[in-house]
Amino acid sequence: MKAARFHGRGDIRIDDVPEPATRPGTVKVEVEWCGICGTDLHEYLDGPIFAPTPEAPHPLTGESYPMQLGHEFAGVVVELGEGVSDLRLGDRVVVEPYIVCGRCDACQQGRYNVCAALGFVGLSGGGGGFSRYVVAERRWIHPLGELGTDVGALVEPLAVAYHGVRLSGVRPGQTGVVFGAGPIGLVTAASLRAVGVEEVFVVEPAAVRKAKAPGAGATAVIDPNDGDVVEAVMELTKGRGADVAFECAGVDAVLSSAIRATRVGGTVVNLAIWGHNASVAMNDLVFREVSVVGSLAYCNDHADTIRLIQDGKVDPYQFITGRIGLDDIVEKGFKELIENKEENVKILVQPS
Amino acid sequence: MKAARFHGRGDIRIDDVPEPATRPGTVKVEVEWCGICGTDLHEYLDGPIFAPTPEAPHPLTGESYPMQLGHEFAGVVVELGEGVSDLRLGDRVVVEPYIVCGRCDACQQGRYNVCAALGFVGLSGGGGGFSRYVVAERRWIHPLGELGTDVGALVEPLAVAYHGVRLSGVRPGQTGVVFGAGPIGLVTAASLRAVGVEEVFVVEPAAVRKAKAPGAGATAVIDPNDGDVVEAVMELTKGRGADVAFECAGVDAVLSSAIRATRVGGTVVNLAIWGHNASVAMNDLVFREVSVVGSLAYCNDHADTIRLIQDGKVDPYQFITGRIGLDDIVEKGFKELIENKEENVKILVQPS
Repeated sequence: MKAARFHGRGDIRIDDVPEPATRPGTVKVEVEWCGICGTDLHEYLDGPIFAPTPEAPHPLTGESYPMQLGHEFAGVVVELGEGVSDLRLGDRVVVEPYIVCGRCDACQQGRYNVCAALGFVGLSGGGGGFSRYVVAERRWIHPLGELGTDVGALVEPLAVAYHGVRLSGVRPGQTGVVFGAGPIGLVTAASLRAVGVEEVFVVEPAAVRKAKAPGAGATAVIDPNDGDVVEAVMELTKGRGADVAFECAGVDAVLSSAIRATRVGGTVVNLAIWGHNASVAMNDLVFREVSVVGSLAYCNDHADTIRLIQDGKVDPYQFITGRIGLDDIVEKGFKELIENKEENVKILVQPS
Repeated sequence: MKAARFHGRGDIRIDDVPEPATRPGTVKVEVEWCGICGTDLHEYLDGPIFAPTPEAPHPLTGESYPMQLGHEFAGVVVELGEGVSDLRLGDRVVVEPYIVCGRCDACQQGRYNVCAALGFVGLSGGGGGFSRYVVAERRWIHPLGELGTDVGALVEPLAVAYHGVRLSGVRPGQTGVVFGAGPIGLVTAASLRAVGVEEVFVVEPAAVRKAKAPGAGATAVIDPNDGDVVEAVMELTKGRGADVAFECAGVDAVLSSAIRATRVGGTVVNLAIWGHNASVAMNDLVFREVSVVGSLAYCNDHADTIRLIQDGKVDPYQFITGRIGLDDIVEKGFKELIENKEENVKILVQPS
């Protein structure tokens, strides 16, 4: 079958690869849609980052690049491995694309998203969503019910946001502020509204992204070019600050604003992956007893995320800004996302 | 009456000041013992830091330096203001030395320790514990029962530690690591043991301080000169890391070790006041979903702290390394603490 593979920085090719075989306890999924993630872009532009090198193959898969890409995918069940009886052929499903050890402290705690040997399907081996078939263990298969697989491909990024929202401890009726209206910022705003947060402020300077924020659920959009962001949040919250803040940018000044815009005793969730050490005024945490917590991917969040979509609490269609075929993945996918970064949220690839 | 007052950097004098008058709802306390705090030392060495200047008097007290010092004090009740009927003359009490606005978001939330206009008796006006009498509102007076007022003067620093331990969310049977065995580090170790934490590791390079750690409750003492601290903690915890960590140093490398020595999903409590921005590898928070929370002073923690001492869960006497009279406060107090920093934990001053 055809598959998009990472061969090194700036080098993604459509290769012929063997079709994966179903094993006991696994499910074979025919992928219908797979989104291109910011992580895929990082790999293409600056990689190998996650992709294991031949010198250091992934400890669990033993694989190294050239590596199949694609981890935001959904499709239909086409084969059930021995012992799997609670799914039916034709079921629409999304795959939680994890490779975990099951033995480390994190796995034992049930926090498998921070497994010491964590890998992702489509980054660390085990195939990838930019190909016709993926085989995964039953535990990672989540039924979509009546939802389409295009929406299903959006479950993964929405689960990232939902996980961060859950870690924040925010309650319905509270206020949240999201720094950055890129794909993760937008789905975070949408997740906050979906769980009942009534006031969601999105901070973003780029015009095209700002325009998308209200549709995602922002009740106010703050442009940092218009003045002090912390003051703006304070004004919107009667001087209190937001109960929770989300750092989706990985920028020192943004983290600083997020901490200072958070209410006494509130929580800043860091969703960004950082390229450098942050400079943090620790006293800003101390004098207002603010917490900063790191959030990575998702953990037992797919079912809730699917339910929020099914219940109409969040509309994923707004985030789909392109649909392309596999052969166009580099030119109309990766390059489009790099060149027209702000116009795009999510481009979906149909692998077959 | 005589009082130690801060007149500017390096200038503390014993002055004559008017005796404070009891007002309705207040209690007049004759101070028996008052500890010298690290904050007092900072003020003496690098101040004015907390002490308000004549150009910017404290918003609640209207006072500026020269300023009475001393906020870790206990004494006996000698006069009750109108309307105070639940205390008796001669009761031994400790004073929670706050000046708060009562109106800001923090005060409204009951988190008065992070009041937007927060002040301390003995730093911001309202008298100070390095004098014979202090008058404070009834709400700030905590009866010591049978405990002596020397132990009572230790309640304040112990409450700082207890508050941080409470914010950490640690549970009995879990593990904690404390970075730094200065006064706050030592009382933090003691507080952890007092609430039922069985394994407490203290990280400290200085020999004299290391020697004090086991008495305070450390089950292991880690010297960073002996090798990698994070590895040592991992070894002591079978590769998991400590459930909670306490940063009592305000040093970049220490904060980094604290984050990496903390278990997946665990919490780092920052008790230090920082003199500079910290350089933080945010990805260390993300990939193990660790939280960092700032902890300031205490808030509804005095009663619990007194109970822990009464129940014999913590022995404050070990922390008293000197007792001096008011006239010796600079030479045998401040200068002794600066010159023999590591030998001392707490020097108590008898103001009359």
